[in-house]
Amino acid sequence: METLWTQRYALRTRRMQSSAVRELLKLTEKPDLISFAGGLPAPEVFPIAEFREAAERVLTQSGAQSLQYSTTEGCARLREMIVRHTSRYGIVVQPENILITSGSQQALDLIGKVFLNSGDRIAVERPTYLGALQAWNAYQAQFLGIAMDDEGMRTDELESVLRSGPKFLYALPNFQNPTGVTMSLKRRELLIEMADHFGVPIIEDDPYGQLRYEGDHLPSLNVIDARARDGKPFSGNVIYLSTFSKTLAPGLRLAWVVAPAEVILKLVQAKQGTDLHTSTFVQMVAYEIARGGFLDKHVQHIRAVYGARRDAILAALKRHMPPGVRWTKPQGGLFIWTILPEQMSATELLRTAIDERVAFVPGSAFYDDGSGQNTMRLNFSNATPERIEEGIARLGAVIRRALPSKS
Amino acid sequence: METLWTQRYALRTRRMQSSAVRELLKLTEKPDLISFAGGLPAPEVFPIAEFREAAERVLTQSGAQSLQYSTTEGCARLREMIVRHTSRYGIVVQPENILITSGSQQALDLIGKVFLNSGDRIAVERPTYLGALQAWNAYQAQFLGIAMDDEGMRTDELESVLRSGPKFLYALPNFQNPTGVTMSLKRRELLIEMADHFGVPIIEDDPYGQLRYEGDHLPSLNVIDARARDGKPFSGNVIYLSTFSKTLAPGLRLAWVVAPAEVILKLVQAKQGTDLHTSTFVQMVAYEIARGGFLDKHVQHIRAVYGARRDAILAALKRHMPPGVRWTKPQGGLFIWTILPEQMSATELLRTAIDERVAFVPGSAFYDDGSGQNTMRLNFSNATPERIEEGIARLGAVIRRALPSKS
Repeated sequence: METLWTQRYALRTRRMQSSAVRELLKLTEKPDLISFAGGLPAPEVFPIAEFREAAERVLTQSGAQSLQYSTTEGCARLREMIVRHTSRYGIVVQPENILITSGSQQALDLIGKVFLNSGDRIAVERPTYLGALQAWNAYQAQFLGIAMDDEGMRTDELESVLRSGPKFLYALPNFQNPTGVTMSLKRRELLIEMADHFGVPIIEDDPYGQLRYEGDHLPSLNVIDARARDGKPFSGNVIYLSTFSKTLAPGLRLAWVVAPAEVILKLVQAKQGTDLHTSTFVQMVAYEIARGGFLDKHVQHIRAVYGARRDAILAALKRHMPPGVRWTKPQGGLFIWTILPEQMSATELLRTAIDERVAFVPGSAFYDDGSGQNTMRLNFSNATPERIEEGIARLGAVIRRALPSKS
Repeated sequence: METLWTQRYALRTRRMQSSAVRELLKLTEKPDLISFAGGLPAPEVFPIAEFREAAERVLTQSGAQSLQYSTTEGCARLREMIVRHTSRYGIVVQPENILITSGSQQALDLIGKVFLNSGDRIAVERPTYLGALQAWNAYQAQFLGIAMDDEGMRTDELESVLRSGPKFLYALPNFQNPTGVTMSLKRRELLIEMADHFGVPIIEDDPYGQLRYEGDHLPSLNVIDARARDGKPFSGNVIYLSTFSKTLAPGLRLAWVVAPAEVILKLVQAKQGTDLHTSTFVQMVAYEIARGGFLDKHVQHIRAVYGARRDAILAALKRHMPPGVRWTKPQGGLFIWTILPEQMSATELLRTAIDERVAFVPGSAFYDDGSGQNTMRLNFSNATPERIEEGIARLGAVIRRALPSKS
């Protein structure tokens, strides 16, 4: 239909494309399809009974407050709880260093709004989180991809990228989305050292840090950064992002930023014009459910469930994938990265896969330069071990049939 | 503290200033201060018991779904309910014409993201909603103010502004924030006709439309626009915004956009990169509470409470304001606009007022050009009639003392 809006304006979306992930979510609605697409937590682990009790307590004890406007920074008690949580990992911050956001996606958007000018360059892992590419495409950013291996960002590529002076570097050091790869301690230390040397600040996105199924916890980049400037408890060259989406529930849209107070102030000003504040009710319910140690116990439970699913998908991949297919072995998180023989196209494969009632995300969606045609991201948190086994068997058969015959 | 973020970057906030409204909200925390600042609904009218029941039902019947990721467009049943609500006012739309947003503030931000380039000009009422100025300042927009009188936007100023080709025109026709003025039917029809003639599309912001305390409901701009193109049920030159903030609760952050499907599609893409989607839990609880006719009954209750408060503030102003002070007589909404003698400064007056334990928002915050020094916005929804009487008595005394002595 012709309207002034459509007729006169190009409805510019600044290279924003409809997210492959969001489109693929629609496929998961077919009940007989086993989906490794999306990044959905398992609904079985949602603490529904605890949410019911928390909502009841909030509405009984502080009903009017929970339904009223509140401050842009976020509810004081929730921010204080996050301060205590953060300090357990060796970062001493104050509530003025915390901003509550409507999911980490909003943190990425606000960072774009405050820091980015058209044409600014951002150093990213290649591949990287699709939502970050989307958020910063909206501000006409350019991306400088840094290749990854089993230890994370390849530091031999890092130097030339940092030397070229990007606005900032964006990294997901723990169980990266999409690859599942964890940056080694050595690489983390080298990254902090080099970023400091070249004067490039860092955005550290850590949605899965608590979901480790084996190995030891590694210090986050902001902890290493703080240690490197001994004496200063929080030097603030690293803006740190985390979320309740993977530990409580993603449907809340509740996350936080840890940053220098001056940066938080600017993000708050940007958030005022963006959505005034995050739902007071959601913040108070999340605080009510998380306080008193419940969240720690709950994370243990999630680890057990997801750890078993990771074991199931690794075993199934070994059993069903034809020779020539490789995959990562994540120590935590939600994703495994699969690399097909070079001449294959995961996007083409997806069409056949859907006919065979199995789905995944073609990996090219996560590349700033559109490469990675022969890669795919598999989520293992949403399906039961039995469904994982059946789904990987279906996927293995689809790949086997699509393999180029040896001539 | 010096960090790379603060040392290297100017932390540009693109002319975004800390909102006077938000800063002033902090003043309302003094319990003996009577605040006419802010735009807070009365907590007494929040349907807390109904929220408790709705949250309980949602978590019992659809707990996992309410805590999971959901689509960017918004929950289907909530959008269908809004379609039914919209059609009652003569606009026939489909769910594809509806986007759920995290408050109307987010709708303003997404419109900026999709439509605005740096330097674009937007026609606005002078004064206008501060949050719109903030949202679009972030995209480096310029504003073309159109003076208002008791019938709304002055159509003698409108023509030259429309002729100069602004990107769009932004209007709040019902009980405008900040002035409380309602655009007359004749002006509405003329605006639609002229905007069509000059090819300027319109953003209609209608947060208070249902809160009318006297007089007849006037058709919204999008209804008049649709009628003007007879045969087409929804021509779509007007993007219409409304919200649950003033009828259910502002702490939810829940609102909606009505627009052509092509525009909704672009807003959805922008929202994907901005916050993925609005809280599933909040959407489902709001649907659960609003369905089955509760919201209609509840709005009747709010009208009775706020109508009495409007009567109380009008009576108190008449009683306590010195000669030379004028004010609007709103037929609905939350605000009254007060005009002091020309040589007075409302900002200076605020300092004294706070000492006397009464607060308001200086009107200049709502002017795109910083004028309106002798104006102030008074909110009447948040205080009881008794507190209103006492607060206006205090304010009247402050103004009386500050009046220039006749020489």
